[in-house]
Amino acid sequence: MNKQEEALSSSAVTDTLAELGRYFYSRGWVLGTSGNFSAVIQSEPLRLAITASGVDKGALTTEQILQIDADGRVVAGSGRPSDEARLHTAVVKARGAQAVLHTHSVWSTILSEAHASAGGVGICGYEMLKGLAGVKTHEHREWLPIIENSQDMPALAGTAEETLAKHADAHGFLLRGHGLYTWGSSLAEAKRHVEILEFLLEVVGRTQQNT
Amino acid sequence: MNKQEEALSSSAVTDTLAELGRYFYSRGWVLGTSGNFSAVIQSEPLRLAITASGVDKGALTTEQILQIDADGRVVAGSGRPSDEARLHTAVVKARGAQAVLHTHSVWSTILSEAHASAGGVGICGYEMLKGLAGVKTHEHREWLPIIENSQDMPALAGTAEETLAKHADAHGFLLRGHGLYTWGSSLAEAKRHVEILEFLLEVVGRTQQNT
Amino acid sequence: MNKQEEALSSSAVTDTLAELGRYFYSRGWVLGTSGNFSAVIQSEPLRLAITASGVDKGALTTEQILQIDADGRVVAGSGRPSDEARLHTAVVKARGAQAVLHTHSVWSTILSEAHASAGGVGICGYEMLKGLAGVKTHEHREWLPIIENSQDMPALAGTAEETLAKHADAHGFLLRGHGLYTWGSSLAEAKRHVEILEFLLEVVGRTQQNT
Amino acid sequence: MNKQEEALSSSAVTDTLAELGRYFYSRGWVLGTSGNFSAVIQSEPLRLAITASGVDKGALTTEQILQIDADGRVVAGSGRPSDEARLHTAVVKARGAQAVLHTHSVWSTILSEAHASAGGVGICGYEMLKGLAGVKTHEHREWLPIIENSQDMPALAGTAEETLAKHADAHGFLLRGHGLYTWGSSLAEAKRHVEILEFLLEVVGRTQQNT
Repeated sequence: MNKQEEALSSSAVTDTLAELGRYFYSRGWVLGTSGNFSAVIQSEPLRLAITASGVDKGALTTEQILQIDADGRVVAGSGRPSDEARLHTAVVKARGAQAVLHTHSVWSTILSEAHASAGGVGICGYEMLKGLAGVKTHEHREWLPIIENSQDMPALAGTAEETLAKHADAHGFLLRGHGLYTWGSSLAEAKRHVEILEFLLEVVGRTQQNT
Repeated sequence: MNKQEEALSSSAVTDTLAELGRYFYSRGWVLGTSGNFSAVIQSEPLRLAITASGVDKGALTTEQILQIDADGRVVAGSGRPSDEARLHTAVVKARGAQAVLHTHSVWSTILSEAHASAGGVGICGYEMLKGLAGVKTHEHREWLPIIENSQDMPALAGTAEETLAKHADAHGFLLRGHGLYTWGSSLAEAKRHVEILEFLLEVVGRTQQNT
Repeated sequence: MNKQEEALSSSAVTDTLAELGRYFYSRGWVLGTSGNFSAVIQSEPLRLAITASGVDKGALTTEQILQIDADGRVVAGSGRPSDEARLHTAVVKARGAQAVLHTHSVWSTILSEAHASAGGVGICGYEMLKGLAGVKTHEHREWLPIIENSQDMPALAGTAEETLAKHADAHGFLLRGHGLYTWGSSLAEAKRHVEILEFLLEVVGRTQQNT
Repeated sequence: MNKQEEALSSSAVTDTLAELGRYFYSRGWVLGTSGNFSAVIQSEPLRLAITASGVDKGALTTEQILQIDADGRVVAGSGRPSDEARLHTAVVKARGAQAVLHTHSVWSTILSEAHASAGGVGICGYEMLKGLAGVKTHEHREWLPIIENSQDMPALAGTAEETLAKHADAHGFLLRGHGLYTWGSSLAEAKRHVEILEFLLEVVGRTQQNT
């Protein structure tokens, strides 16, 4: 890929990230400046486009998306990357993901508390599971690990790395009282995973109310 | 109908299918590439416009709608038809339907599990039932059969055919853990049936929470 | 008002009715062609603009709004008025209302069943009540009578007239398993009443789930 | 700031207030003409832009936003300011807020009743809390005091002043059966606080249903 193509590609990625942010906001999944999103622009060395910290996702613009390297240093754009940038790079390294999306919905927050003592949420028997990459049947059992929330970012990133290693099949994880992380081999796949997991968490949450 | 009229008609059908897909998506009924929609373009021999497999319904375009024949072979357009195309052709044959719509909402998913052991969901006493074709009174009892989900598509289509024959008055059915199928003598009627059944399933689901 | 002014006024009314219909649809309050809306265009003799029967409120146009007289006969426009036109004229006569709006939401449907044996829903203590015409304090107690649903329209209209006479202070009523009727001295007031009563019914319904 | 700059700034503020109103309305947080919003245009002497009483927030225009002084007198624009203008000026004085936003959602209404006997709602352990100004950790405990509703505005404003003094760390308060007040050092911060507190109140409300 020559310089010009890369620039175009990078521009397409930031456009899509900004659009995704506004869309998730419209669904109520990233209110109050919560949530953050990233996508790989270049692999070697790693260049990750990522939303700046503390921006209103309902009015997200491409100017609010930075580029960081593998160590989280800003290499393009102005502003501060999300404090959780380390979690994004950890997912990219552990999964070879091309995009990492973190939403913060009512249902993911509720289930991350309600299932904290179990260490995760098990989801099985739903056709929607087949939309997760590599899943062929609704009989698949998805285990979404729950990681205890922390403001110590290096520690949290370390726990996330361990969790990703331990649960090598997981398509996402929950931070307790905080929300959902998922990813994909493309932005489109990562978006699909957000919709699927948010849908399933709502189904599980409402089912528990019904019984 | 001459060739030109048919082409126009086919184009109007695919436009409407794409618009319906985006509308259902906005309601949260076909997230994560779930759901699929079809409409008859020609009866003899059967030509069915149907959404391609695995496409994002929030950005559904007419290019993502194929034409298949009665055996599910692609006769126009590129891409793969939904795996569930056999269910669409089964409904068209059994009911003489002109359109078949499959949505995948939170409430239809929840009720398809909660009522699975009963084999279906009975709905009675609601004025909204009068919007179903041929129903004249809210005292009508609609029985939505629940079919056990399966990844064996010929087997699932066979079960659907039996269910359609056994419950000749049903305006739709649920696949367990999967969602709603309904249909109509036109796309407008099928859309109305989706809205009515999704509404009623939400009412039934929330009523059970309230008691 | 001369002929030309009247024509303009009538056109403004039908524009607003069509806009209201599309708005209520977007909120999910009139799915599946449910709901109907009317507004007085002329008092002596009565000319009521009213939505035609069985139209999709999400695509409601001014062409789908007819004019009827006090006996429900169509005097302008084509199509059939809603079967419930008699309820609209009954409300106009009993309350001197300039607009009558009937919505069909999930919560109004649920509460109309859950409170049927009590004959109505009592709502008290909410600031939102102050938005109802003539209400000065949140300590106001609104009693929304519930009328048993029926397909015998003359009988239903008769019951509605009795209910309106008996509950002279009510700002609306529920048809069991069917939805909400409310009205106002203008279209804007009637719209406000819909929003207030739908809001309060949701609050009451969810509060019962919480206890 | 010279006269022209001030005029521009005032215009930007009213534009943003009108936009915020329409946005909150789309979320269902200010139905039925409920809710009111203000922002400081000038500090010495105080000039507060504030929504007029009884206007439909879904169609809020800049013409429906007035200017009042510290005593609630209209100094620019026509119409009557919200009856609750005293609460806005009380918050501005007590907190040095630049913007005060009052929403009226289903969940804030429900929780303001359910927790009334406790005098407030305690919220702890959620990452979303970090979006509140000055909060550094999800372990923060936010206490939202609940004030008994009243139609005696001077008395209500007095109680609000006492509450603000007593709970100097609170980022908002609830009026019983009425809704949420929050504020910020800018309109953007106040909007963020609305989203965060409305989100957290929904989480708390639904969690109580789940247990």
